[in-house]
Amino acid sequence: MKALDASAKGVYLIAVTPFRDNGDLDLDSTDRMVDFYLEKGATGLTILGIMGEATKLTADESRIFVSRVLARVGSRVPVIVGASAPGFAPMRELTASVMDMGASGVMVAPPSTVRTDDQIAAYFDMVNETLGPDVPWCLQDHPVSTGVQMSAGVILRILKHSPACVMLKHEDMPGLAKLSAIRAAGDRGETRRISILTGNGGGLFLPEELTRGADGAMTGFAYPEMMVGVVDAHAAGDIERAHDIFDAYLPLARYEQQPNIGLAVRKHIMAERGVIASAAVRKPGPKLSAADIADIERLTRRQERRLREIQ
Amino acid sequence: MKALDASAKGVYLIAVTPFRDNGDLDLDSTDRMVDFYLEKGATGLTILGIMGEATKLTADESRIFVSRVLARVGSRVPVIVGASAPGFAPMRELTASVMDMGASGVMVAPPSTVRTDDQIAAYFDMVNETLGPDVPWCLQDHPVSTGVQMSAGVILRILKHSPACVMLKHEDMPGLAKLSAIRAAGDRGETRRISILTGNGGGLFLPEELTRGADGAMTGFAYPEMMVGVVDAHAAGDIERAHDIFDAYLPLARYEQQPNIGLAVRKHIMAERGVIASAAVRKPGPKLSAADIADIERLTRRQERRLREIQ
Amino acid sequence: MKALDASAKGVYLIAVTPFRDNGDLDLDSTDRMVDFYLEKGATGLTILGIMGEATKLTADESRIFVSRVLARVGSRVPVIVGASAPGFAPMRELTASVMDMGASGVMVAPPSTVRTDDQIAAYFDMVNETLGPDVPWCLQDHPVSTGVQMSAGVILRILKHSPACVMLKHEDMPGLAKLSAIRAAGDRGETRRISILTGNGGGLFLPEELTRGADGAMTGFAYPEMMVGVVDAHAAGDIERAHDIFDAYLPLARYEQQPNIGLAVRKHIMAERGVIASAAVRKPGPKLSAADIADIERLTRRQERRLREIQ
Amino acid sequence: MKALDASAKGVYLIAVTPFRDNGDLDLDSTDRMVDFYLEKGATGLTILGIMGEATKLTADESRIFVSRVLARVGSRVPVIVGASAPGFAPMRELTASVMDMGASGVMVAPPSTVRTDDQIAAYFDMVNETLGPDVPWCLQDHPVSTGVQMSAGVILRILKHSPACVMLKHEDMPGLAKLSAIRAAGDRGETRRISILTGNGGGLFLPEELTRGADGAMTGFAYPEMMVGVVDAHAAGDIERAHDIFDAYLPLARYEQQPNIGLAVRKHIMAERGVIASAAVRKPGPKLSAADIADIERLTRRQERRLREIQ
Repeated sequence: MKALDASAKGVYLIAVTPFRDNGDLDLDSTDRMVDFYLEKGATGLTILGIMGEATKLTADESRIFVSRVLARVGSRVPVIVGASAPGFAPMRELTASVMDMGASGVMVAPPSTVRTDDQIAAYFDMVNETLGPDVPWCLQDHPVSTGVQMSAGVILRILKHSPACVMLKHEDMPGLAKLSAIRAAGDRGETRRISILTGNGGGLFLPEELTRGADGAMTGFAYPEMMVGVVDAHAAGDIERAHDIFDAYLPLARYEQQPNIGLAVRKHIMAERGVIASAAVRKPGPKLSAADIADIERLTRRQERRLREIQ
Repeated sequence: MKALDASAKGVYLIAVTPFRDNGDLDLDSTDRMVDFYLEKGATGLTILGIMGEATKLTADESRIFVSRVLARVGSRVPVIVGASAPGFAPMRELTASVMDMGASGVMVAPPSTVRTDDQIAAYFDMVNETLGPDVPWCLQDHPVSTGVQMSAGVILRILKHSPACVMLKHEDMPGLAKLSAIRAAGDRGETRRISILTGNGGGLFLPEELTRGADGAMTGFAYPEMMVGVVDAHAAGDIERAHDIFDAYLPLARYEQQPNIGLAVRKHIMAERGVIASAAVRKPGPKLSAADIADIERLTRRQERRLREIQ
Repeated sequence: MKALDASAKGVYLIAVTPFRDNGDLDLDSTDRMVDFYLEKGATGLTILGIMGEATKLTADESRIFVSRVLARVGSRVPVIVGASAPGFAPMRELTASVMDMGASGVMVAPPSTVRTDDQIAAYFDMVNETLGPDVPWCLQDHPVSTGVQMSAGVILRILKHSPACVMLKHEDMPGLAKLSAIRAAGDRGETRRISILTGNGGGLFLPEELTRGADGAMTGFAYPEMMVGVVDAHAAGDIERAHDIFDAYLPLARYEQQPNIGLAVRKHIMAERGVIASAAVRKPGPKLSAADIADIERLTRRQERRLREIQ
Repeated sequence: MKALDASAKGVYLIAVTPFRDNGDLDLDSTDRMVDFYLEKGATGLTILGIMGEATKLTADESRIFVSRVLARVGSRVPVIVGASAPGFAPMRELTASVMDMGASGVMVAPPSTVRTDDQIAAYFDMVNETLGPDVPWCLQDHPVSTGVQMSAGVILRILKHSPACVMLKHEDMPGLAKLSAIRAAGDRGETRRISILTGNGGGLFLPEELTRGADGAMTGFAYPEMMVGVVDAHAAGDIERAHDIFDAYLPLARYEQQPNIGLAVRKHIMAERGVIASAAVRKPGPKLSAADIADIERLTRRQERRLREIQ
């Protein structure tokens, strides 16, 4: 398995967890999904995140799914596993288990119970104790789901005390100023350089984030070719082309980012594209109405037309 | 002044409150802003909302601003004034004052302290007592700022007990299913028809909302011609044209909807367009960085090009 | 094992989970704790609750702890196991596992993501599907930890659709009016009678709750004899005696109910009383300062004196 | 009027705002209330706080009430006026107005929109700009109502930048550790000494707070003689006597501190004691049931008996 380190860039896909219509884990679709993401240009995968319905899996299901993904990925790209947990014993156990299976690192977000800068910093001291010096980890900054606001200052403080933290998943919103501040601190030599991958509102600010110094995206979208295209064009110095690609996908990306039904939209499209067999989302979870599906069809059709125009 | 009633449609602009660089109210810019909104096709105005920095004005400033807007609008379009307040005595006083000055109605959101369906319904019973039967009012459903989640069921319950409630400002997210449910209840004769104007994420779902039965938009954006163009094309039955217009403005609209700096982006563009003299936002409020302004310039330039393409 | 049914009354202790100083599960202390609770008059036990540090245990540790408690209790009193989970697959798995081991029922609180009455009711429909008709369960109403406010109306609605729900753990605050409303609905024949055990602020309103119709307490306190004494005196019709006992313990009970350090206070006293070997709380968790311990010593000494006075 | 400075100690009463049964301001009761508080030993008053229903008053009513209180107090004790506001223009206007009328200082809490240490510190920099160097002010730390958690570190940082901040109203819960940390920083010379008055849960931790270095209490309770008695006994070195007095009132104080109906309980008792003419609370606000009143009667009767015993 490829190691996770601070040089990571490109597009880390937040993978869904495929289920059958009856709600069972769908491992054949899991294989197809891994292939699909990598064929579209993913440089890494992140599994068992919120959009991976991690909390709806039993412990056994989690292990089976992680194992299947790792086997299919082989050594092609790094795989990060979500390890946020309300307690450190489960975090240690899950981390040990997935690292043994071959994961490249884990991702940890703060729990909703920490609020002040001191509490946040103290929490990540305990995370470091729990993970030990040898597990590379990614700090997830996602106030929409955690309720925890981490200032640029507290992120820099965490980095200083966390030698094994090699990546920031930056999802704060608006996060452009914070992103600039962290990169500026690195440029001034106040912090070592880490990889910053962004996921603001599901990649809805990707071109601007790359301009501010992000190394790429870590997010989900039923069209991973969007993020890959934007990141590649940007890396090639063609900023306008990056925006052209982004804008072509934006109407559908926006629709997929609706807070409640977003995951159902994503799985619906992935099923339509033949990646997964069923669009099933486990309860408690959203279902699409006929009107939602009509919206998606219109947006998909318009997106195809626009993509042909900008080819 | 035009009365506010359930037949309202089109685009009600959420007006900004213009300040000078030194923070004083700017009444000349206020006049220009009113003219600008109406020239661009606004069918109504909403003032003293969150994006109008209402809570940062003194009571005197509020009165002066409302009075100036009403004088400039004359009888051209209805003007709604935000009247949400933590207590009913201030709500009654403000409402009486602005209705005397000639406002067409008021807008009320629930306070963050009500949570259950019963608490929400009881709160609006008290609102009805406070406003009396003669003040038309708009129910604002904006969980992002209030923290209050109102189900379709509780909104229908409020309507049943609120003969003077003629409009719903629908800003829940995702709100498409709720919008469909309320319209369906009306179609089944379970509730009288009210005007529904939407503002999800600042109009970021406007074409889909119109398809679900919304009567128009109530939101702010430095390019009101977007909402007017989308609503008009939709009303003329040209759904694809509505989407074309929407998509051309979407990259900038998305940028203007960033939670923290959004209002500063809006005022910056309005100042650039010559509508208001200064982009000043009162403290506590956001300031734009050079990088933010570079983003806006690029997005504006791209938007102009795209608008020419789809003419 | 004794079955859990709607006739439950008395005092169900929210058990702590004893650890050694090094953080390992302490099963010898677990046995002593079970004996202590039952000797003091507990009529039931609740394990793996928030105060049982459930989320800090690995899956294996949870199973070992539940098994040990059930073995020690034997068939003396019912044991309820906390089964709240963010997903239904883990809830089903945990419930099946503990019911197989001999638990009397499970306890479920709503997740923080449900807000409206409809969402709350729909969630518990799914809980019923998950648990099936044969597992007696207790509805936990604890807005302080869940953020979910359940009105009396929505609780009655849940009961109507949940034949296997036999108990309400009532911890809302202030909850006296809600308690009265639920009992009144039962008296009017609008709902079947269930057991209501209370835990407002850790039992800080127990005498008043009994007067409103509660069947007893489900809470933790290092002196379970307080709750048992109050409930017994009340059941015997000696309301003043119930208050006398309550008042004697109130200063220390109040101190133990401090939101953050409360569990550390409870374990400290239980260790001082010889019930558990160590006062260790797993990270992230509170630690007592010397000043805290001095407070506890003073309050304990005063409590002993007062108890002698009212003997 | 007495100036507010860092030497303040004793008991600052959080005053209620008396209304008539019809909801009008009751100025006669206001006079009686002021006399009552001072006769019972208050060393200061705080008006227009949350428990003073400040947000339910019109601007005119606020001015009339402040003016009446100040006139009645004369120069007997300092009067602090709550000046928290969502914007700085209203805060400046209100502060100027009440200081002109003769108030001794104002009290400011952070708005719920600030979260990180940097945001909190920046907010109070703007408060200092707004109030200017000549208005003594009290920092209110009340996370239960504001949602803002201020660490000891951020409070010390605010003090460093706020020469006119002379007092901390400490209401965090549990706050004993924070109180100790702030006093320790003062002892080490890291911060100048300010007055710390406490109100945790309405004074429910007063004896312990005094032991940790608080200068007194700033809270409301229908029996101000409790706080005065506890503070005086503590100041005289008789800690056990302080606890005796505290314990005698604790059952009723606890009942009065119920989050929702607390203010109605307080006003009911004050009306029963003849201090105010009516127990009316303005809408939206709680009402007492017959069962609530029966609880209060029992608790009051028991309190009287206990007070006789410890005389």
